[in-house]
Amino acid sequence: MKRIYLDHAATTYLDKRVKAVMEPYWSKNFGNASAIYKEGRDAKNALEKSRKTIADLIRARAEEITFTSGGTEGNNLAIFGVINSYEVQLRKILTKLNFVKPHIITSNIEHHSVLHPIEELEKRGIIEATYIKVEKNGVVNPKDIAEALKPNTVLVSIMYANNEIGTIQPISEIAKIIRDFRNRQLQTTNYKLQTNEKMAMPFFHTDACQAGEYLVMNVQKLGCDLMTVNGSKIYGSKGIGFLYVKKGIKLKPFMYGGGQEAGLRSGTENIPAIAGLAEAFKIARASSLKESERLTKLRDYFIKSVLEKIPNVILNGDPEKRLPNNANVSILNVEGESMVLYLDAKGVSCSTGSACASESLEPSYVIMALGLPYEYAHGSLRFSLGRQTTKQQIDYVLKVLPSIVEKLRQMSPVRFKAKS
Amino acid sequence: MKRIYLDHAATTYLDKRVKAVMEPYWSKNFGNASAIYKEGRDAKNALEKSRKTIADLIRARAEEITFTSGGTEGNNLAIFGVINSYEVQLRKILTKLNFVKPHIITSNIEHHSVLHPIEELEKRGIIEATYIKVEKNGVVNPKDIAEALKPNTVLVSIMYANNEIGTIQPISEIAKIIRDFRNRQLQTTNYKLQTNEKMAMPFFHTDACQAGEYLVMNVQKLGCDLMTVNGSKIYGSKGIGFLYVKKGIKLKPFMYGGGQEAGLRSGTENIPAIAGLAEAFKIARASSLKESERLTKLRDYFIKSVLEKIPNVILNGDPEKRLPNNANVSILNVEGESMVLYLDAKGVSCSTGSACASESLEPSYVIMALGLPYEYAHGSLRFSLGRQTTKQQIDYVLKVLPSIVEKLRQMSPVRFKAKS
Repeated sequence: MKRIYLDHAATTYLDKRVKAVMEPYWSKNFGNASAIYKEGRDAKNALEKSRKTIADLIRARAEEITFTSGGTEGNNLAIFGVINSYEVQLRKILTKLNFVKPHIITSNIEHHSVLHPIEELEKRGIIEATYIKVEKNGVVNPKDIAEALKPNTVLVSIMYANNEIGTIQPISEIAKIIRDFRNRQLQTTNYKLQTNEKMAMPFFHTDACQAGEYLVMNVQKLGCDLMTVNGSKIYGSKGIGFLYVKKGIKLKPFMYGGGQEAGLRSGTENIPAIAGLAEAFKIARASSLKESERLTKLRDYFIKSVLEKIPNVILNGDPEKRLPNNANVSILNVEGESMVLYLDAKGVSCSTGSACASESLEPSYVIMALGLPYEYAHGSLRFSLGRQTTKQQIDYVLKVLPSIVEKLRQMSPVRFKAKS
Repeated sequence: MKRIYLDHAATTYLDKRVKAVMEPYWSKNFGNASAIYKEGRDAKNALEKSRKTIADLIRARAEEITFTSGGTEGNNLAIFGVINSYEVQLRKILTKLNFVKPHIITSNIEHHSVLHPIEELEKRGIIEATYIKVEKNGVVNPKDIAEALKPNTVLVSIMYANNEIGTIQPISEIAKIIRDFRNRQLQTTNYKLQTNEKMAMPFFHTDACQAGEYLVMNVQKLGCDLMTVNGSKIYGSKGIGFLYVKKGIKLKPFMYGGGQEAGLRSGTENIPAIAGLAEAFKIARASSLKESERLTKLRDYFIKSVLEKIPNVILNGDPEKRLPNNANVSILNVEGESMVLYLDAKGVSCSTGSACASESLEPSYVIMALGLPYEYAHGSLRFSLGRQTTKQQIDYVLKVLPSIVEKLRQMSPVRFKAKS
């Protein structure tokens, strides 16, 4: 029996069309893009063509695209890059304004590759941070951002769509709030004169790793200053991604060496993966509307059916402000990991929010952030649909899941009733 | 006409056997190695199998291998990882010993991905550094290391083989010097008690990116504590590599996120590239002796012929302590870049030490480190042979190069005589 893969938020397979584009760069046009002979020039052309393709698709300039080894590196580069670049300069200004540390605003449901760099900077005593609590539907209230902004805020990092519960954040609304704040900053303090920068801070970064396949990626419309995208979530290769950095923002690299990517990301460019990323992104953008429509229907059918067929189940996140491919439910009185394994035995791949650490069972911080009791986090299940997901597959899951839940509930000693 | 690629030190093509191993992990077994269902477990198995294969080949433990995005990341992780991890603890000890800063020893011909992180740490005021000058043959004198070692030395980073002039450094000799120094440290100070570490410092890191195809890679024999290896120089994929970290050394990550690679390198594991790296390394190790013998003959034939056929030419680096595939010569009164382009037009790919920066022509710091005048650096040419290099190809280069040199010398206004 063919397996039913419903964990596209974790990673996607490599699209055949993407692989075909990568093919010539492995063994034929394999040159180092820094070399000046033919193989090098060919590699450089592929690199710059890919950069231009991606830039055009997000309405950016080619020089605003930096290739990275993936989403984690993109997010780390955005955060460490801003802090390392502006810290020294900032301290001077902030001291005058009676602020000691640069301030970062983020949300409490960001990916670990955003939260952990920020926590690390806090631990080192370099920054102070505000973690905005999402509303019960898993969406950030833009007003909370407005209230958290301070004269020493240098970066706001809010993800575009959550990897676990699929909620979509109001990026352009947040961007507008930040822009307005920056304009006020420029008028009310002598900020601009002191920094010599064309742009006032804070900068606005969004982790868009889950969004590339489905949502608007036009940075002009979104209004963000930095944006992380990852290849392995959009049917591209693993180990590749890009960071959009708006012109005028000077990031400091956090990997030093040959000075590739305009000095921002050293290391021999991974041309096959980069050419593949451009193709994957092109395909994703072209199919975005149609695929979003198709999967939204399938997702809603699935969610509705699960809520109907299984008692004591709730939907996590917002019913509408969510990724077309994401269904995340908490099934009470059942351990998420057990369900994943039982579904696995039935040929279905999905994941649970409750990541199993080696020793302790830690509940998902994202589900916990919704203000739900532990029991909900423990029984959370994420199904993330993809290009090959069919109604037949969904119907099969709807057939096997209720009996798995029933069986596990019979085995479980705990009984906890969902609030209606 | 088929092109003659003689720049394998810059990058190699992907070996067909490696690609065949990578194949199933792109679209079939594409799972995320952190997932607990079948696709995830398959990915995890491939990951751990690859780790074991590599560990066995260098006589290390599997848990001593950390996968990275390549040589640059490996070198950065080694340097920043040691400094960030031991800095706070060190300062306490060093202050008692009347030393303020940790000290790093490296050589003046290291790759930029070693030199630039060290320079960056110096700039930030975090460390002090000693740059050992190589001898005229491009080899580090181990006595110079011995003399540079200080009680506050935390890291020695000496490359195994140079990427430009191919010289091989006496790694095991240097390792012994460092071990002896560590043992004396432990006896003469209360170092051990103060640090609570099982190992005394300094740690010994070697950048082995150019060595994997040809030299002994047994870390027990080499005696190093950290070793960087890169896939794209050994006919593996671009964007992958590994760092060997001896058990007991606690590095601090410099990329934060999901905690993959035992917390040392976050980011979804690039399984196709990792499986390919294990295969590439296996092939390289198996063919190492035979290929080294074959290329040493070809290299020596080439060097001898160039020196005979073209007047005013010298060999850069040591005639014997050099990589089997590396021939680097300085051809006086000719611009390296011009030769590369003229050879390119004749279908031959090689490189010059004089990297052409955007505005200024900067001479190679490696050639300059040999104590030669500028003129030598400007006329340097690197030919790095590979698995598909034949005598016929070398003979073709020997046919076209002398007339190119003659032509360019006729055009050149400068005349500089080689010292005999």
